Amino acid sequence: MKELLKDLDKAFENKIRIGIMSALYVNKYLDFNTLKNLLGVTDGNLASHLKYLEKSEYVVYMKEFLDRKPNTKYFATPLGKKAFKKHINAIEQLLK
Amino acid sequence: MKELLKDLDKAFENKIRIGIMSALYVNKYLDFNTLKNLLGVTDGNLASHLKYLEKSEYVVYMKEFLDRKPNTKYFATPLGKKAFKKHINAIEQLLK
Repeated sequence: MKELLKDLDKAFENKIRIGIMSALYVNKYLDFNTLKNLLGVTDGNLASHLKYLEKSEYVVYMKEFLDRKPNTKYFATPLGKKAFKKHINAIEQLLK
Repeated sequence: MKELLKDLDKAFENKIRIGIMSALYVNKYLDFNTLKNLLGVTDGNLASHLKYLEKSEYVVYMKEFLDRKPNTKYFATPLGKKAFKKHINAIEQLLK
C-alpha cells in the first residue's frame, strides 16, 4: 500500500488539475476557452492550475494566431500522461 | 465533464486521505497503528487526516481497551464509502 501511495502525485491532488489532465489525456490538444468551458471554471482559476502543471512539465502550450487573434493550445506532455496514468492506476489498485 | 468534476470530493484531494479511505473501504475496521504502518506515515500526520475525515463524517472511531491498553478502531461510514466510490468512479469516467 505504501508503494501505491508513492505513485499518487501531488500535481493531481486537486480536482481542476485532474480535470485538465483528463481532458488533455483524451484530446490531442485543447485551447484555453474550450478547457474553461469544459471544466466550468474561471479564467484565473484555470490559468493558475495550468501554470502549476506547466511547472511540473506535465502540460505545454503553443501560442498561435487565428484571424489575427491569439489562440493558445494546451497539450499534455508524455511525462504528464505517464504520471497521470500512474496516479489513476494506483487509485484503482488501492481498491483491490 | 463538469458534472463528473462535481463528484470529485475535496476530502480526497490528498494522498494520505485517499490511502485511509481505501484501507477502510476494503477492511471492516483498522486500528491506529495498523493504519499508520500500512500507509507509512507519522502519528501526527495520520491523526490530522483522520480528524479531517471524522469532521466530514466519512470516518468514525471506537475506543476500547485491550489488556488495559487503549486501542482505537477506525471505520469508514456508509456516507464516506459512498462519497469515496463516487470520487473514484468519477475519475475512472473522466478518462473514458
